[in-house]
Amino acid sequence: MGFDMAGKTATGDTAGKAPAGGPAVGKVHLIGAGPGDPDLLTLRALRLLQEADVVVHDRLVSDEVMACVPSHTRRIAVGKAAGFHPVPQEQINDLLVELGLSGLTVARLKGGDPTIFGRGGEEFEAVRRAGIPCDYVPGITAAQGAATSARFPLTHRGLATGLRHVTGHRARDAALDLDWASLADPQTTLVVYMGAANMTQITCELIRHGMPSDLPVLAVSQASTPQERRLHATLADIAAVLAREPLPAPVLFVIGHVAAMAEDCALPSELYRPEWRMVAHG
Amino acid sequence: MGFDMAGKTATGDTAGKAPAGGPAVGKVHLIGAGPGDPDLLTLRALRLLQEADVVVHDRLVSDEVMACVPSHTRRIAVGKAAGFHPVPQEQINDLLVELGLSGLTVARLKGGDPTIFGRGGEEFEAVRRAGIPCDYVPGITAAQGAATSARFPLTHRGLATGLRHVTGHRARDAALDLDWASLADPQTTLVVYMGAANMTQITCELIRHGMPSDLPVLAVSQASTPQERRLHATLADIAAVLAREPLPAPVLFVIGHVAAMAEDCALPSELYRPEWRMVAHG
Repeated sequence: MGFDMAGKTATGDTAGKAPAGGPAVGKVHLIGAGPGDPDLLTLRALRLLQEADVVVHDRLVSDEVMACVPSHTRRIAVGKAAGFHPVPQEQINDLLVELGLSGLTVARLKGGDPTIFGRGGEEFEAVRRAGIPCDYVPGITAAQGAATSARFPLTHRGLATGLRHVTGHRARDAALDLDWASLADPQTTLVVYMGAANMTQITCELIRHGMPSDLPVLAVSQASTPQERRLHATLADIAAVLAREPLPAPVLFVIGHVAAMAEDCALPSELYRPEWRMVAHG
Repeated sequence: MGFDMAGKTATGDTAGKAPAGGPAVGKVHLIGAGPGDPDLLTLRALRLLQEADVVVHDRLVSDEVMACVPSHTRRIAVGKAAGFHPVPQEQINDLLVELGLSGLTVARLKGGDPTIFGRGGEEFEAVRRAGIPCDYVPGITAAQGAATSARFPLTHRGLATGLRHVTGHRARDAALDLDWASLADPQTTLVVYMGAANMTQITCELIRHGMPSDLPVLAVSQASTPQERRLHATLADIAAVLAREPLPAPVLFVIGHVAAMAEDCALPSELYRPEWRMVAHG
């Protein structure tokens, strides 16, 4: 079955009904859940979550975002989290195809943005290959969530002329083969996702390729949620600081001069008014 | 006057009233308007736009987003757009301070995300320096908007392990002094904002520093709006294609293998159902 541009079957008003021979095909929305705070969902994401027949969600999606899903809606947790994949990607793809072919409107909810890391493109391809309409709904990234709660800009005149996102993790414990020379640009804010386990290698390689060892680093755990915790350090000491005082996953690292503009970790956030648990590091 | 953490004055329930000696201080929200489609605003952005006393907005903010502002709300256009700054940045800063000190709740609405380019950090610093509470409200970037409407991922297994945002424009026509060797990484999706005027230099430098000349490039004008137009080209020919067929600003460039996954420019978008004006380029 081919993808129909207008999202309807050729018979128009029979869309959604079961024609002879099987149910009408459904659709799959790959939806960005944002960093955790439900207030940072897009209007479209909220609407589609409320219209969906079934929500297929990662472990990284916060309870507060899941609370936006109507209580009668079916939920399927596929448990994807950094370093822990109870449901292999191929099975997630198959599940989305199966649900879509059975005529359901599926909200596939992923932490952050579905087009940035998290293998959203693979799910999109599998679903479209099966003839099921599929689209992306963007989400606020964890880096933007961290910038919001710690109140610092990701680029700033004189400090950072660009912004770069990389993952510090490879599938199945493969070695990190990042282009270190390219990454070692102190004028670019470098955001490392899923890098906690490899922070020693990452910081050593960056320093070896010319990054200043006193470059500020901000580590943010569970950005934008009530559990958010932040650590200030430098490129030279962040790995040791983390080893002494591990942060709960997911942790992102903001490496660059703008990290020094992040507010003192003892400050409460504007995002959630209840008390935050912060880690102050001098 | 110092910044009060809870956003209230020390006298608690007198907040918002004018104490003897002058009005209570207001607050300033630096709000991301997203790429243009109002459906991509965050829930918080919409709420704050509806609560504001005054909205100070850039020219890049779409009419559709401005339509979310209540009709009785005062609006001030500061006309900031690429290559065209009728209101100097210092005057925008002064305006925000003046409005905040007069006790108003100010929504400073900026295209995309206020922490990524667009000098949001400078406005934040000026406002906070004046003792006025200020925060950031994130927005979907134009790159995410383009990925949504053209349905391609910004990172993808085997094609792009990271994502990088740079501006292809310098203030007051200063020369572009980007770190070309660092940028020339074909495994990183490179998004260039405000680069149309400098595309010849940008593509020549990237090729000279090792980027394949047949690397796919997607140019997207007014991403996520009903006026969105897209051009497919390669690194070698994008500058010539654009010279023949200029696109309306703002234009962003997605350089990298994932650009080839963007859907055919003749396809309608899921974002706006009305007809789109597309530029097909073979």
